[in-house]
Amino acid sequence: MEQSVPVYERERIDDLLTQDLKIIQSEDVFSFSLDAVLLARFCSVPTRGRMIDLCTGNGVIPLLLTTRTRAHITAVEIQPRLAEMAQRNVKLNRLDAQIDIRQGDLRSAVQDIGHGLFDAVTVNPPYLPVPNGEQNINEHVAAARHELFCTLEDVIRVSSRLVRTGGKVAMVHRPSRLVEICTLMREYRLEPKRIRFVHPRADHEANMVLIEGMRDGKPEIRTLPPLIVYKNQNEYSDELMDVYFGRRLTLDHNPDTY
Amino acid sequence: MEQSVPVYERERIDDLLTQDLKIIQSEDVFSFSLDAVLLARFCSVPTRGRMIDLCTGNGVIPLLLTTRTRAHITAVEIQPRLAEMAQRNVKLNRLDAQIDIRQGDLRSAVQDIGHGLFDAVTVNPPYLPVPNGEQNINEHVAAARHELFCTLEDVIRVSSRLVRTGGKVAMVHRPSRLVEICTLMREYRLEPKRIRFVHPRADHEANMVLIEGMRDGKPEIRTLPPLIVYKNQNEYSDELMDVYFGRRLTLDHNPDTY
Repeated sequence: MEQSVPVYERERIDDLLTQDLKIIQSEDVFSFSLDAVLLARFCSVPTRGRMIDLCTGNGVIPLLLTTRTRAHITAVEIQPRLAEMAQRNVKLNRLDAQIDIRQGDLRSAVQDIGHGLFDAVTVNPPYLPVPNGEQNINEHVAAARHELFCTLEDVIRVSSRLVRTGGKVAMVHRPSRLVEICTLMREYRLEPKRIRFVHPRADHEANMVLIEGMRDGKPEIRTLPPLIVYKNQNEYSDELMDVYFGRRLTLDHNPDTY
Repeated sequence: MEQSVPVYERERIDDLLTQDLKIIQSEDVFSFSLDAVLLARFCSVPTRGRMIDLCTGNGVIPLLLTTRTRAHITAVEIQPRLAEMAQRNVKLNRLDAQIDIRQGDLRSAVQDIGHGLFDAVTVNPPYLPVPNGEQNINEHVAAARHELFCTLEDVIRVSSRLVRTGGKVAMVHRPSRLVEICTLMREYRLEPKRIRFVHPRADHEANMVLIEGMRDGKPEIRTLPPLIVYKNQNEYSDELMDVYFGRRLTLDHNPDTY
């Protein structure tokens, strides 16, 4: 079972619903959302080797990745309060041997950790540019939503330098920024290879995009089947239920092996 | 009713299924496919003004566009045999006043026709790079499939120069070339604004992409609901039936007006 770790006021322990994983969260500072779960199920994973998760928050993505790979996972979070929570999550699930939480700025990750060391990168970055006017007054929530500590270009540039040639970088983002994402990935030699759009309902526009590039890959991209979240009024689709309950660990029907 | 025009050996007259339009086709030289029908239903159209269709083949896209707009439509085709067939199709449907077929090379269209004159461009270009080895021995079919007379970059560069600021360029292509399309569109100041993926079935990868850019548009793209072609073994989905039979003239649930 899980190891005993402190749980502070206004925090709670939730089930990750997959293979008995537990996670400490707090509405005040960070709680994971569907985006993170889908990214952890979408990304290509090496069977062994090294992965790194940027903007890890409370560590939800590394926790979920352990159900798919034996790779060692480094996870970077800039906010000390969240990095500390991620560290407790690793302990809570007795995953210290597989996950290494680092508090730090991803913009110095290449210098701090190393160049071309990783087989795969995952990142669920803040989606919104820094607003001109008011922003969320909660600094933790604001940093997770707005590009306060890193821009999209920072994320892509650093990811590209962290992976080896042929390594994969997977990201979840807003589809409204698709063209910017593709342009920047190509500029930094991460050729987009797989993309999957997430639509709240079958007849709605996409509100999320999952995209994966390969360092120095050949230009050719596969557009996976659309992922539909709800089938009826408020009922999750079968695929989404399978993902949430860990009955399906990968979102790709024809995953690459690598 | 339609006007009498010559129909040659190994040609046939088909119904376009929409508002009594007829079309002369020939398996030997050109017959339209789903791609063209979807593009004609996907593109934004001005209510009046001027449109231009490049790589028009037998003129199927201009014919279909007349059901959506009163704009004057210029259509360019490089192969004389096809341009002549397109001209007969215009006559057959008594659309001479609205559609002007030009036989010529799109690469000189800006010099031949004019710069920034059009409100919208449509183009269903050849999808495949010129092969190294064998290609289709039928020259007409080869030119429709392979980039013999124009590359993707030619198509995008010329389209960008034909439209006015704020004008729209809509294209159908293979989704495997999505990143190249987005990169080139942005390079030639056609900001991608709407995209729709076509999947043969709900659980299959996309095999077609419809994309529209705006000359000097603001960067932000909408990803429309996926278009699913078949719902069962060989049965068209309801949306596709509506499109084919002209019960739905636009593929966008929330079309821009312009």
